[in-house]
Amino acid sequence: MLAVATLAALAALSGVNAYNNGLALTPQMGWNTWNHFGCGISEDTILGAAKAIIANNLTQFGYEYVLMDDCWHAPARDNTTGAPVADPEKFPNGIKDLADKIHALGLKFGIYSDAGTYTCGGRFGSLGYEEIDAQTYAEWGVDYLKYDNCFNEGLAGTPLISHERYANMSRALNATGRPILYSMCNWGEDGPWNFAVTIANSWRISGDIMDNFDRADDRCPCTDMLDCKLPGFHCSVAKIIDFAAPVGQKAGPGRWNDLDMLEVGNGGMSFDEYVTHFSMWSLLKSPLILGNDITNMTNETLTIITNKAIIDINQDAIGSPANRMWKRSVNEGGDLSLWAGSLANNSFVFALLNTSPAEQTVYLDFVDVFFDQGKAYQTQAYDVSDLWQKDVAGNWGKSIGTIQGGFNVTIGSHQTKVWRATPVQSANAKRAYGEL
Amino acid sequence: MLAVATLAALAALSGVNAYNNGLALTPQMGWNTWNHFGCGISEDTILGAAKAIIANNLTQFGYEYVLMDDCWHAPARDNTTGAPVADPEKFPNGIKDLADKIHALGLKFGIYSDAGTYTCGGRFGSLGYEEIDAQTYAEWGVDYLKYDNCFNEGLAGTPLISHERYANMSRALNATGRPILYSMCNWGEDGPWNFAVTIANSWRISGDIMDNFDRADDRCPCTDMLDCKLPGFHCSVAKIIDFAAPVGQKAGPGRWNDLDMLEVGNGGMSFDEYVTHFSMWSLLKSPLILGNDITNMTNETLTIITNKAIIDINQDAIGSPANRMWKRSVNEGGDLSLWAGSLANNSFVFALLNTSPAEQTVYLDFVDVFFDQGKAYQTQAYDVSDLWQKDVAGNWGKSIGTIQGGFNVTIGSHQTKVWRATPVQSANAKRAYGEL
Amino acid sequence: MLAVATLAALAALSGVNAYNNGLALTPQMGWNTWNHFGCGISEDTILGAAKAIIANNLTQFGYEYVLMDDCWHAPARDNTTGAPVADPEKFPNGIKDLADKIHALGLKFGIYSDAGTYTCGGRFGSLGYEEIDAQTYAEWGVDYLKYDNCFNEGLAGTPLISHERYANMSRALNATGRPILYSMCNWGEDGPWNFAVTIANSWRISGDIMDNFDRADDRCPCTDMLDCKLPGFHCSVAKIIDFAAPVGQKAGPGRWNDLDMLEVGNGGMSFDEYVTHFSMWSLLKSPLILGNDITNMTNETLTIITNKAIIDINQDAIGSPANRMWKRSVNEGGDLSLWAGSLANNSFVFALLNTSPAEQTVYLDFVDVFFDQGKAYQTQAYDVSDLWQKDVAGNWGKSIGTIQGGFNVTIGSHQTKVWRATPVQSANAKRAYGEL
Amino acid sequence: MLAVATLAALAALSGVNAYNNGLALTPQMGWNTWNHFGCGISEDTILGAAKAIIANNLTQFGYEYVLMDDCWHAPARDNTTGAPVADPEKFPNGIKDLADKIHALGLKFGIYSDAGTYTCGGRFGSLGYEEIDAQTYAEWGVDYLKYDNCFNEGLAGTPLISHERYANMSRALNATGRPILYSMCNWGEDGPWNFAVTIANSWRISGDIMDNFDRADDRCPCTDMLDCKLPGFHCSVAKIIDFAAPVGQKAGPGRWNDLDMLEVGNGGMSFDEYVTHFSMWSLLKSPLILGNDITNMTNETLTIITNKAIIDINQDAIGSPANRMWKRSVNEGGDLSLWAGSLANNSFVFALLNTSPAEQTVYLDFVDVFFDQGKAYQTQAYDVSDLWQKDVAGNWGKSIGTIQGGFNVTIGSHQTKVWRATPVQSANAKRAYGEL
Repeated sequence: MLAVATLAALAALSGVNAYNNGLALTPQMGWNTWNHFGCGISEDTILGAAKAIIANNLTQFGYEYVLMDDCWHAPARDNTTGAPVADPEKFPNGIKDLADKIHALGLKFGIYSDAGTYTCGGRFGSLGYEEIDAQTYAEWGVDYLKYDNCFNEGLAGTPLISHERYANMSRALNATGRPILYSMCNWGEDGPWNFAVTIANSWRISGDIMDNFDRADDRCPCTDMLDCKLPGFHCSVAKIIDFAAPVGQKAGPGRWNDLDMLEVGNGGMSFDEYVTHFSMWSLLKSPLILGNDITNMTNETLTIITNKAIIDINQDAIGSPANRMWKRSVNEGGDLSLWAGSLANNSFVFALLNTSPAEQTVYLDFVDVFFDQGKAYQTQAYDVSDLWQKDVAGNWGKSIGTIQGGFNVTIGSHQTKVWRATPVQSANAKRAYGEL
Repeated sequence: MLAVATLAALAALSGVNAYNNGLALTPQMGWNTWNHFGCGISEDTILGAAKAIIANNLTQFGYEYVLMDDCWHAPARDNTTGAPVADPEKFPNGIKDLADKIHALGLKFGIYSDAGTYTCGGRFGSLGYEEIDAQTYAEWGVDYLKYDNCFNEGLAGTPLISHERYANMSRALNATGRPILYSMCNWGEDGPWNFAVTIANSWRISGDIMDNFDRADDRCPCTDMLDCKLPGFHCSVAKIIDFAAPVGQKAGPGRWNDLDMLEVGNGGMSFDEYVTHFSMWSLLKSPLILGNDITNMTNETLTIITNKAIIDINQDAIGSPANRMWKRSVNEGGDLSLWAGSLANNSFVFALLNTSPAEQTVYLDFVDVFFDQGKAYQTQAYDVSDLWQKDVAGNWGKSIGTIQGGFNVTIGSHQTKVWRATPVQSANAKRAYGEL
Repeated sequence: MLAVATLAALAALSGVNAYNNGLALTPQMGWNTWNHFGCGISEDTILGAAKAIIANNLTQFGYEYVLMDDCWHAPARDNTTGAPVADPEKFPNGIKDLADKIHALGLKFGIYSDAGTYTCGGRFGSLGYEEIDAQTYAEWGVDYLKYDNCFNEGLAGTPLISHERYANMSRALNATGRPILYSMCNWGEDGPWNFAVTIANSWRISGDIMDNFDRADDRCPCTDMLDCKLPGFHCSVAKIIDFAAPVGQKAGPGRWNDLDMLEVGNGGMSFDEYVTHFSMWSLLKSPLILGNDITNMTNETLTIITNKAIIDINQDAIGSPANRMWKRSVNEGGDLSLWAGSLANNSFVFALLNTSPAEQTVYLDFVDVFFDQGKAYQTQAYDVSDLWQKDVAGNWGKSIGTIQGGFNVTIGSHQTKVWRATPVQSANAKRAYGEL
Repeated sequence: MLAVATLAALAALSGVNAYNNGLALTPQMGWNTWNHFGCGISEDTILGAAKAIIANNLTQFGYEYVLMDDCWHAPARDNTTGAPVADPEKFPNGIKDLADKIHALGLKFGIYSDAGTYTCGGRFGSLGYEEIDAQTYAEWGVDYLKYDNCFNEGLAGTPLISHERYANMSRALNATGRPILYSMCNWGEDGPWNFAVTIANSWRISGDIMDNFDRADDRCPCTDMLDCKLPGFHCSVAKIIDFAAPVGQKAGPGRWNDLDMLEVGNGGMSFDEYVTHFSMWSLLKSPLILGNDITNMTNETLTIITNKAIIDINQDAIGSPANRMWKRSVNEGGDLSLWAGSLANNSFVFALLNTSPAEQTVYLDFVDVFFDQGKAYQTQAYDVSDLWQKDVAGNWGKSIGTIQGGFNVTIGSHQTKVWRATPVQSANAKRAYGEL
C-alpha cells in the first residue's frame, strides 16, 4: 500500500502549481497596514514600516511583502479613463513612486482592492473594472493584490458564481504579464479551497481574526466554514484553528489557506497565546503577514515572529499543512489536540495544542503522530527537537533526544509545543518516496 | 492596533451610504396600516392615523412616515397602460390626493407592493411591472416603498437570484428621480444583509413578528436566519432578537436591518416586555414603525414609544447597531445577555436583557461592556445614566453616577435595562477617532 | 390589532386561487392505483375500482378522482409524432375509452407522468415532451395529472430550477384549455410550498409514505423537509406529520400540501393509528387519495374513510390548515401535540395527538387552542363536539357540551381526538371578519 | 397492498438500465493501480497485475477489469491535435498495445481522467477535452473510465452544474460507439445518486477510503453525505457504511453507488474488519475493485476476496442494495446494525454488523429482517445459511437450519455475519412477483 504521507507528497512534488504565476511556492510573508493604521495610511507610514522591516532584519526570516491595505484611494476613479487613482494628499508622489522606493529597499509591494462595488472601507471597488485595475497595478509596479469581498452585489452563494467573480481578476492579473501574487479575501465563502486552487495563490478561509484567543463573539457566527453563510469578523484564534483543520488537505505550493493576518504584538493575548497563534499559522501553512506596529516591537513580539525553526516549518518545500491527528475534550473546558505533518527530506513536524484553562499532561503516542506514515514509521526511532527551545548555540530547536514509541508531555493552558522529528535510520522512508 | 470600535465607526463615517438615494441615514420611523387595519383600509383610516400622529406630537420624536400596506389595489391594473390602479371605493380621490393631504400635514407617505405575481393579500404584484409601478408611485408622490416577497415564482434560493429580483425595483425607483425610501421585505431569505446593502435602505431579517414575547411557534420554524428556507411568521420578540444578533455588523447609515413593525400597544405583551421590544429594536437600529392603533393609545404605550433617550440611541448619527457581548443560560430557562454599542461623540450604550422567567442579579463588568474598545476604555470612569428612568427635570435618562470597572444590576423577568455612558475624560478615545 | 386568524382567513377569502385553473378549491379526493396494484394495472383493474367507488357510495363523501398511476405506458412513444402511447395489452380500448367510461360513472379520471427522462417505474417520462403530452392527455379526457420526479437529469437543487421544470408542464396543461388538476410530486425538494403556489394545485411535501406509524427508516433520511436533499421513501405517518407542521401556512384554496396517499386499510397500522393518519391528513388539508383495495374493505376501514365530520374539516371552505399549537415530549418517548385551525362561519377545529407508547392525560387550555384568535376567543364559551363519536342520530360529531376555559382529556397511545367548536355567542368574532 | 420489496424488484425488473450503454448490469469487479503503485505505474506493473489476476484464478470470481489510475500521462497533450498522450518512458509501446495485451489475457482495460483542469496528481485533465479524450480512449481499446473531480474550476455546488460537467463526458463516451463503463468519481458532491443515474454506471458516494476501520479523521469532515461540501479523504470503513445507508435506494442495474476501492490486504485492518469491509461493500452493491498487491497476497486476503457466496450477493441479478433495518447504540461505544435485502428468485440476504469494541449478543427478529416484505414473509420458515462458513463440500455458505421467527446471534467486535435465506414454501412470495 502506498503510504498516505506519500500521497500528500505526491501532490506537492508533482509540479502542479495550480495557479501558474510561479509565485508563493511557499506561503507569502510580509506586513500589512490595516491592523495598525486602518485608513490612516500615507506614503510616510508605509515607507516607515518598510524601513522597519529592514532595520529589524526581518527580511532574513522571509518577510518581504509590504502591503498597503484599504483607503489608499482618491474619492473617485479617473473621469476619462476609469483608471484607479490614489489619494493625492496621502500619496503626493503617487503609488508608482512608492513602489519604486519599496523595491529599492529590496522589498515587494502589495495593494488592496475589492471584488465589489465598494471596498470594505467604502472606496471604489474593482467589480467591472478588473482589466484597467490590474493593468494600472502592473504599471505601478505592484507585486501582490489582496482582493476583498464587500458590497459584492449578491455575486456569491455557489462556488461557480464566486469563482467567476474572482477569476475575472485572476485573468486580468495574468494578462498584464507581471507576476502579481493574488491573495483572495472572500472569507471562505463557497469554499475557495475547492474552487480557487487554479486561480489564486491564497484565499482567506474565515471571517476576520480578532486579537483574542478564544472569546465567543456573535459577529463570527458560524460553527464551521464548510457552508458558512456569514463569515463575519471577530473570530478568535482558537476558532480559526478549528475552521482550518479540515481544509489543510486542499493547500499546496502556490495555493494556500490564509488564516488571516497575524495579531502577534497587538496586545490582546498572552505570550503563550501568541506562540500558539504563530505556531499554528506556521504548521497550517498560512501566509505570515504581520499586523502589528513593527516600528515599535517588544522583545517578546520579536522573539515570536523571528523563530527561525517555526518559520522553516511554514516555508518547508513540500508545502503540506499539518493535520489534526486527534482532538480530545478536557474536563476543565476546551481541548487538547495533536497535529502532525510531513516536511521535506523525510522529516516531520508535530505539535500539541492546549486550549483548556488548565495545565495538562498527555502521552504522545507515535502511533498517532505517524498514523499517516504507517507502521514502519510508527515504530522507528527519531531525533526530536523542541522548536520553542534554543540549542546551546542559541538557535531555535533544542534536541530532546532520540525517541521511539512516544513520550509524555506537560503543557500549560493555551500553550502549543512544536517538535521536529527525523528518523534515525530512514531507509524505509526513502523507498516510499523513491518510487515517485 | 486599531480599536475595533474604530473600525465600526470607519464604515459609518466613510461616507458610504451604499444605496445612494441619500435616505434613511438613520433608521426610518413611522406608522403602518397593516397590524391594526389589515385589508380594511381607506382614505379615511389612513388620514385618521396621520392626524393622530400630529395630535400626539409623534413627529417631534421622529415618526414621520405614514405607510399604506397591502390591499389598496383595484382588482386589476389598467387595461391599456398596465399601470397600477387603486381601489376606487376605498380611495375615491385617488392615491395622489391622499399623498398630498399627508404631505400637507408635514408627513411622508409610503406604499406597499410585492416582488411577485401577487401581493401576500392576493392583489396584483409588481414582478415584471417594476418600471411602470415605480413611475406611478413617483407621480403619486410616494416617499417610501415596502416591497414584499409572496408568490415570487421560485425567484429565490441564491443571493444572486434574490438580488436581481429586488434590484430591478431599486433601479426603477432610482430612475424616477424622486427619492423613495426602499424597504425590502424578503424575510431575510438568501441573506439581504449580504446582498442588499447597495440596493435598499432596509431589509427585513426574519419572518413576521407576532405580539408575544417568547412563545415557540412552528410557523417560524428556523433556529437562525443565516440559511433559513422558511422564514414564516409568528416569530416572537425574543426569537427575532436572537436572529438579529449576528447581522448587526452589516447595517449602517442608509442600510438597516428591519426587525419588523412594532407590536407595542397591541396587547399581547406586558409593559416590561414592550420595553424590551422597543429598547432592543432601538439598539439594533431597526426602523421603528408603529403597528398599533395610534388613535387610541394608553399612557403606557405612549410612554414607551416616546422615550426620547431610547429613540436617540436608535437615531444616533454613526448608526452602529449594538452587539451582544455575552449570552448566558439561566437555570430557570431563557438567558441573560449583555449588549453594547458605540454612539457619536465617543459615547456608548449598553443594555442587559433577561428572557428568563425569574429575576436575576448580575455584575456588569466593563471588560465586557467595552471589550471592543480595548483596555483603556475598559478601565476608565464613565458618567452613566439609566435610559428608562427620568431625571429631575422629567427627561428620560437619569444619572446613576460615575462608574469605573462595573456595577451590579438586578433585573426582572423579561425586562431590559439600558444605559448611556460617556467617559469622564476622553482624551484617549479621541485619538482613535481623530485619525480617520 | 388584527387577529391572526383573520389574517389566515384573509388569504383564503381574498380570491387568490393562485394557480388559476379554478380546481381544487378544497383538497382533491379520490383513489389511486399504485398502492394496491403497482405496475399491474389494466382497464379492468381501474374500472373495477371505479365501480367500487360507486358501489360503496364513496362519491357522497367527496371521493371523485380515479387516478391511474405509473406503468400504463407502451414501451415507447409514437415513432412519428412523439405522442405518448398506452400499453395496448393492458388498455386494448385505449385511454380515451377508459376515461369516457369513468366519466360515465360520474367520476373524474387522472393520469401519471414524470418530470424526467423516465418515470419512477422506468417508462418514458415527459421531460422535453410537456406540450405533446398535455395535449394528448386533454384529448384523452384526462382531469388530473400526478407529475413525479424520478430521473430528472440534475434539474433540481434550487427553487428556480425546480420551478421551471414543473412550470413547463403547468403552462402546457393550461394551454390545452381543458381544466386539469395539476398534482406535483417532487417530494418537497426545493420547497414547493414556496415556489409552486402559482403553478400547481398541490405538491407532495416529503418522500413516499409507508404503511407504518412511527418506525425509523434510513430510506427517509431527513429530519425536516425545509432543506432536504434526499426525501426518499418509507416515511412513517408520524414523521410526515412532523414534516407538515411548518408548511401549513403556505397552503390554501387551489394550492395544497400533499402528505401522500392514504394507507388506511392496508394493514400496517392499528385502528387508532389509521384514525390518527386520516384525521391529521384532514386537518392539514392534504388531498385525500385512497390507496387501499376499495373492492374489499373491512368495516373498520370504511368507518374511517367515511367519517363525514372529519372530511368536512378537510373540505372546509376557507381552506386553512390546522397549526400545531404546542408539542410536548413525553417521558415514555414520543410526544403529545395540540393542533388547531379556523373553519368557515367562525367555527374551529382542534385535535390532540399522542405519538407516545402510553396513555396520557392533559388539560387542553383554551389559551392555547385559541391563541391565534386572541383573548376574547380564549375566554368565551364554545359548543364542542367530538368528531370521532357519533350523536344519537348516528352522525359523526357528538356534542360534549358547552365548554369555557378548557377541559381534561385522556388519550391512548397513537390516538388522535378531534373536536369542532363554535362560540356560543359570536358577536365579537363577527366583527373581526366583517372588516374584510 | 403491494409489498415494498416488490417495488424494489419493480425498478430492477423494469428494464430501465438508465444509462443505456448496457454495462455494469451487476457491479463491476476488478483491480486498480492506485492503492499499491500510486504514480509509479508502467506497462510492466500493469501487465504484472493482469497476469496475477489470471494466476490467482480471480476471473472465475468475476474480477475482470484492470484499471490504470492517475499518472499515465505525458507532460502535455499533443501540440497539434490536443489529443491525450501517454508517458513514453512508462509506456514505450503505447496504451493501445497495453490494452491489446490485457484483452489477450481475457481481461478488460480501464483508464483514468479528471473532470477538471488537472488530474488529482497534477496531470492534464479532460475538462473541455471530453470529445477528443473519449475518442482517443476508444481508439486505444479502453473499456472503462474512472473520472475524477480535482481542479474543477468551481463547476460544482448544484446538481445541475455537476450533472452538466459529468454528462459532457458521458455523451462523448457514447458518441464513440464503443461500450465504455463510465465510473464517476465526484466524491458524492451534489448527490450523484440523484443526478447521475442516467449518465453513469457508478458514482463514488464519499471522500476517499482509508485503510482503517473507524478512526475519526478531520480530513473526512462531513457527518453525512446528503449535503457535504468537503468530502475529503481518510474516510474510515465504518464511516463510509454510514454514508451509504440512505442512498442504496437509488442504485440498480447499470447504476451503482461506489463505496471506493477495497483495502482488503493492505494491512491496516484485522481479518474481521476486512470481512466486514468486503461483506458490506457486497451487500450494498458497490463495485468490487481490489486495491491491494495482487502479486503477493496472504491466504487470509485471498480467502476474503474469493468468498463466492458473498460475491454472489454482490452480483445478484436484481441488483437491490441491502437496507439497514435498524441501528442500535451500544454501551461500549459504536453500534449494532441489521441489514437486509432482496435477491433474485425470492431469496434474501441479511447481515449483522457490530462496530462496537465488545462482543454482543442480539436476537434477530424476522419481523425486522423481513419488515419490507410484510407479515407473510415475517412469519414463514426459511432455509438459512451462514455465508462466512463453509459447507462440508468446502463451499462458502453453511446451512444453519430451517428457522422461523428469528434466532440469537453472538457477534465479535468489528465483525459482520451474513446469511442467505430462502422460504421453505414460497407460494405467497411468488404471487407478489408474478403480477409484474
